[in-house]
Amino acid sequence: MTIAVKNLFANLPGGASGEDFLTLFENRRVKISRIVSHAHSSPAGFWYDQAEDEWVIVLRGQADLEFANGEVVKMAEGDWLTIPRHVKHRIARTADETVWPAVHVSQTAV
Amino acid sequence: MTIAVKNLFANLPGGASGEDFLTLFENRRVKISRIVSHAHSSPAGFWYDQAEDEWVIVLRGQADLEFANGEVVKMAEGDWLTIPRHVKHRIARTADETVWPAVHVSQTAV
Repeated sequence: MTIAVKNLFANLPGGASGEDFLTLFENRRVKISRIVSHAHSSPAGFWYDQAEDEWVIVLRGQADLEFANGEVVKMAEGDWLTIPRHVKHRIARTADETVWPAVHVSQTAV
Repeated sequence: MTIAVKNLFANLPGGASGEDFLTLFENRRVKISRIVSHAHSSPAGFWYDQAEDEWVIVLRGQADLEFANGEVVKMAEGDWLTIPRHVKHRIARTADETVWPAVHVSQTAV
C-alpha cells in the first residue's frame, strides 16, 4: 500500500473571481475541502444556512465573514474559527487569492 | 452570538523536543487538533495503530512518516495525506518546529 501525498497549494485554479472547491477527504459525516476564492463575495442578501458545523482556516489571503447579526469577522493568514450549524453567514469579501480549507461535520449521516 | 477567531500559529509551545497537542474542534466523531512537534521521533519500534482515519497537513516545518511496510513518506509545507485507520505508522523525524494540524475521524461514535 502506498500513501499518496499531495500539496494543498499545487494546481491552484486561476481566474479573477469566484470560488473553487476540491474534496480532500470525505465520508458519511465529514468532508474536508480546499476552497480557493478570488475576490469573492456571496450575492447580496444571500446567507449560508448549513446543516453541518464548519471549521475553516485561512492559509493564504484573507476573508471577511458577515453574520446575520451584522457582525463582520476578519480572517487573516492562520486564523481559524468554527461556524456552528444553522448560524447564518455570508462571504463579505476575500482577497484576490484566498486558500481556506474547511471541514464540514454532520451531526447525522449524510 | 460572537464567533471567536483564533490563530493557528499563536502561542506556539517552546521546547526543543517532543509533541504538543491542542484541540481546535471536537464532537463524538471528529477531532481537529493542532500538533506541534520539535525534532520529534516516535520511540524505536513503536507504531501508531489508530481506530480513526487521520487527515494531516504540514503547515510549517517538515515531517517524515514511516509505515510498517518500510515506506517513508516525506512531508514538506503544504503536503497533506490521509492515513486510513489501522495503517501502522510512526514519526521517523520532524523538523525543529513542525506545525501539522490533523483531523481524526471515527467510523463510530467515540
